[in-house]
Amino acid sequence: MSSAWLLPEHIADVLPAQARHIEELRRGLLDVARGYGFELVMPPLLEHLESLLSGTGRELDLKTFKLVDQLSGRTLGVRADTTSQVARIDAHLLNREGLTRLCYCGPVLLTRPAGLYATREPLQFGAETYGHTGLEADLEIQDMALDCLRSAGITKVTLDLGDARILRGLLDGLQVDETRRVAILAALAGKDAPGLAELTADLPEPARKGLAALLRLYGGMEVLDIAERDLPGLPLVREALADLRSLAARVKQAHPEVRVGFDLADLGGYAYYTGARFAIYTDGYSDAIARGGRYDEVGAAFGRNRPAVGFSLDLKELAALVPARRLAAAIRAPWGESDALRSAVRQLREQGETVVCILPGHEHEGQEFDCDRELVGSGDQWVVRAL
Amino acid sequence: MSSAWLLPEHIADVLPAQARHIEELRRGLLDVARGYGFELVMPPLLEHLESLLSGTGRELDLKTFKLVDQLSGRTLGVRADTTSQVARIDAHLLNREGLTRLCYCGPVLLTRPAGLYATREPLQFGAETYGHTGLEADLEIQDMALDCLRSAGITKVTLDLGDARILRGLLDGLQVDETRRVAILAALAGKDAPGLAELTADLPEPARKGLAALLRLYGGMEVLDIAERDLPGLPLVREALADLRSLAARVKQAHPEVRVGFDLADLGGYAYYTGARFAIYTDGYSDAIARGGRYDEVGAAFGRNRPAVGFSLDLKELAALVPARRLAAAIRAPWGESDALRSAVRQLREQGETVVCILPGHEHEGQEFDCDRELVGSGDQWVVRAL
Repeated sequence: MSSAWLLPEHIADVLPAQARHIEELRRGLLDVARGYGFELVMPPLLEHLESLLSGTGRELDLKTFKLVDQLSGRTLGVRADTTSQVARIDAHLLNREGLTRLCYCGPVLLTRPAGLYATREPLQFGAETYGHTGLEADLEIQDMALDCLRSAGITKVTLDLGDARILRGLLDGLQVDETRRVAILAALAGKDAPGLAELTADLPEPARKGLAALLRLYGGMEVLDIAERDLPGLPLVREALADLRSLAARVKQAHPEVRVGFDLADLGGYAYYTGARFAIYTDGYSDAIARGGRYDEVGAAFGRNRPAVGFSLDLKELAALVPARRLAAAIRAPWGESDALRSAVRQLREQGETVVCILPGHEHEGQEFDCDRELVGSGDQWVVRAL
Repeated sequence: MSSAWLLPEHIADVLPAQARHIEELRRGLLDVARGYGFELVMPPLLEHLESLLSGTGRELDLKTFKLVDQLSGRTLGVRADTTSQVARIDAHLLNREGLTRLCYCGPVLLTRPAGLYATREPLQFGAETYGHTGLEADLEIQDMALDCLRSAGITKVTLDLGDARILRGLLDGLQVDETRRVAILAALAGKDAPGLAELTADLPEPARKGLAALLRLYGGMEVLDIAERDLPGLPLVREALADLRSLAARVKQAHPEVRVGFDLADLGGYAYYTGARFAIYTDGYSDAIARGGRYDEVGAAFGRNRPAVGFSLDLKELAALVPARRLAAAIRAPWGESDALRSAVRQLREQGETVVCILPGHEHEGQEFDCDRELVGSGDQWVVRAL
């Protein structure tokens, strides 16, 4: 009883100042998305587990809270990621022939936090484009991700590029099962050279050397030249490197203030990426604040394998990185039943003002809203006066 | 696999047109709340079960999805109602001396739907005032609930008043356990006279007759006169009737377009109400679209028993009742890498326009956005031209 107010670990209330900040950012990002022609959808928090995890891999399975549906006896999952839900909507509900741009913003729940200080309830905002194989869709998504962060007030941005086809190309046709593949990904992500060497000791030399080379392939534009020299000239690898070169050139042209980098060993995150992928960083914060890329096969489980590119970010994390705008000053008004007072208050509120009515007995309390004006009776009129 | 797109019963995706509508209503209601000086909070979706259900009764327990926290092994609940969470925030996190006004907007999950067509994932919007015992707090909450519905476009509104103290007064000091109390509430809500008679056969005559009288006590202002005549003159009952008379008079004065009614047998909903309560209806829809009232003891479980009044509604339900505003027309633009085109597109988007770039190969597809203008190159300028 005495600890009824204690929350589970990595779960927190969002209190007024931060909640207002998140709400303002939320509106701003949704407005940016609407400006690009992305349509808002709201997938449910709950789905049948097998639907929620279709084609997403084991990582997401472990992160997903499971519960039982009293109505059907089936196992449900609370979404830990929204991407596959939006792919389901594209494939089955909208089922359009042409290009479809969708965005979303809502909470997800994670069984385990991603880090020491991470929340288990991110507020995920994201956008997805379906139906276009060309790099233009990748570029538009990167443009929008950068515009979203700019609108939120994030400056000093680095966009890191990578490509899921490089690892796929290196391992293509080799006997590497899922468990080992996951271990290789972990070794690459952790820049663990001895671990990687052990895991790949029995692989043919081009694959083994190529994987070892990935560990060093991070940095600026020079990375692409080194990659072309050091990685085996497999078709998927060549395709990936050529696309990365185009993407980088275009981002540099369109966003000269953004630093472009590469991390060809950064293959973590979700198993569904199939092509170019990106992560956006800002100075002074070590985690990526937005991640995205191409995942052409995410709709396959729903019977409609459309090309897809998207990105997502956590609004709670974003809000912690940028200062909140100051709250507009409010007007204090007495409480009263007179029609004239009521209508003066209503009119001010309709103009977008915050009017805080002081209920009887609370005249001497501090106000959370900074009231710089008050509504006072003057004759049979009510007028706003500076405080 | 083939049915991976099927959702659980009473769970649905919200598709673009409706999602945009809900988002617009959401902003409108949050803006109304800010205009009244209510501060936004975002309590988590997950809490320890005993905290989530503190002082809320068995009804909410049955509605709450339970799951196990891998980090602690404890049982967590996904919130089925936000009220007790906001009370916890008032009691423990803010812990202010004075009047506190809080609002919230987020999903809740229900194990069972409230009706044949009801969703198990309402989007709950609500507001709560803590720290004021007088009727002014009740009036302000009713004003705001009515203003919220007005801003959403709901017309032809009826506000039904009731009071939890009437039943409490009638049963005060009698041997009526929780199970029987719940059965009496159900018989009253179902207007089940024979059932009620059986349940109350052994009670003293004033209580028995008073409870039976409640079944007929619904309608207009005359209900209060009949109630004063037919209900036993107990202090709690008298107090409740006097408050209902004041509230009704004030609502009639301030909102002449709203019909005011009474339903003294409507005691369903949450067990936490302790005083005057209200339900708002609109013509052509049988369920209440907003419910609220006084629940002074909701913070007790958190060690701080502040007076509290609030209301809540389901934004999804509300959106289904009012027509969506038409989507503003958009501008179509070609896809291109030229700086002049990019900057023209960016400028239009910054002005609040939706600019849909037509990616190569998609020139002849229909657009979800109604494009009434297009961006065309004219010399080295880009200009907007009517379509």
